[in-house]
Amino acid sequence: MRAAMTGAATGIGAIVAQKLKARGYEVVAFDIAEPEGVDQWVQTDMSDPAAIARAVLEVDGPFECLINNAGLPPRDGLEETILAVNYLGLVQLSEAMLPKLAPGGAVVNTASRAGAMWRDNLVQVKALMALSGPEALSGFVAEQQIDYVRAYNLSKEAVIAWTLAQTERLIAMDLRVNSVSPAAVSTGILEDFTAAFGERVAKNIARVGRPGRPEEVADLIVFLAGSDSHWIRGCDHVIDGGMSALAQTDQLGL
Amino acid sequence: MRAAMTGAATGIGAIVAQKLKARGYEVVAFDIAEPEGVDQWVQTDMSDPAAIARAVLEVDGPFECLINNAGLPPRDGLEETILAVNYLGLVQLSEAMLPKLAPGGAVVNTASRAGAMWRDNLVQVKALMALSGPEALSGFVAEQQIDYVRAYNLSKEAVIAWTLAQTERLIAMDLRVNSVSPAAVSTGILEDFTAAFGERVAKNIARVGRPGRPEEVADLIVFLAGSDSHWIRGCDHVIDGGMSALAQTDQLGL
Repeated sequence: MRAAMTGAATGIGAIVAQKLKARGYEVVAFDIAEPEGVDQWVQTDMSDPAAIARAVLEVDGPFECLINNAGLPPRDGLEETILAVNYLGLVQLSEAMLPKLAPGGAVVNTASRAGAMWRDNLVQVKALMALSGPEALSGFVAEQQIDYVRAYNLSKEAVIAWTLAQTERLIAMDLRVNSVSPAAVSTGILEDFTAAFGERVAKNIARVGRPGRPEEVADLIVFLAGSDSHWIRGCDHVIDGGMSALAQTDQLGL
Repeated sequence: MRAAMTGAATGIGAIVAQKLKARGYEVVAFDIAEPEGVDQWVQTDMSDPAAIARAVLEVDGPFECLINNAGLPPRDGLEETILAVNYLGLVQLSEAMLPKLAPGGAVVNTASRAGAMWRDNLVQVKALMALSGPEALSGFVAEQQIDYVRAYNLSKEAVIAWTLAQTERLIAMDLRVNSVSPAAVSTGILEDFTAAFGERVAKNIARVGRPGRPEEVADLIVFLAGSDSHWIRGCDHVIDGGMSALAQTDQLGL
């Protein structure tokens, strides 16, 4: 079995790569930094369409799965790059990789609990989805007054919406796609989230006992990438230790 | 490892029992009919509170998981029994079994895509959740004019809502609960759903290519019952070959 993935050098992705290797996959990684222990590394700047196009040409299919895990956290000043890497780059790389996926192949996208409000923000999500490429981001960010926190949330909202929107086309290609929405995971970028989302993050973590571990999210990604989940299509899977359930029960008086 | 489950004799549950056995679990089954290949069968009428209370006394913990899979399909005339088995019996058995679960133990509830509208029907869902027991169902069904299709949908809506609502309490007990929402699965009761929900079922099946297979739903249940999913808490997991995604993309113009 062969897996292609982005964002394999650090955080959740590094553990996904390890777990895939342990299950016998050959792992091909697109990343700006060199990941450890993968079979092939294709250095790729996921914010640069030309780099993505070149990178995909360097790998041969077929792959049983494509795991789109690369993503930037909410960081001030990175508004455009966040939208370019987390959403536009993910879409471009996926489109180029689809013909290299084996029949029955799975795409798994790392979204986020921060994207949970995608239905409420659908007009802006659709506007992002309609952009021609990252060159249009500067005008879009200015016009829509998107700060770095909103850029992050919007990028993940769009990942969830794009996942849904590809379901029918991928069924016709004998492929499938799902997304994973983790919250508050103890990786190198947890501080960015605490800074961006404030006290709420600490409160949610306290309520469920601790932050998630990258291993836990990796287990879900590996499940969705493998054949034991092949009837699961077009769904977003929350993994947050119960944070989302607690928020809903509070809100709904359950 | 030891698993307790309801509804192990037929359909999805029979395959869950097989898969658990293949993974080395000892399987204890509560069912009105005798399941094949389980380690202990406790004959249980899940519509009868006294029978449930007796059944739970017959088994000793600890169990690593409790899988609440027993359920009746939408069948005319069974309004009260559907609500009694699919929801009230599930809750009663779970409450009695929680003290027999091992630390870190998982509860998995079989809900249904038919329960997806639980938020829209929350007033009625809460009214069902507030009933004292099946003896109150006759008045409830009459007063709320609940037919058999509504009884089925409501029972599954309540399973999803109850799952969410137990999350915080179960975290404090070092336990967790999730639900699974399959749609149109090729088991002995698929005809009931086609009769109850009409053409829509056939249309949805055609669009995603075929009905789901019980094995596919069983794989998800086994994943949620096991340790690879232990950070997933209080979530409903749709497994429908993409039906829900297609309905949403149609509705939202994605």
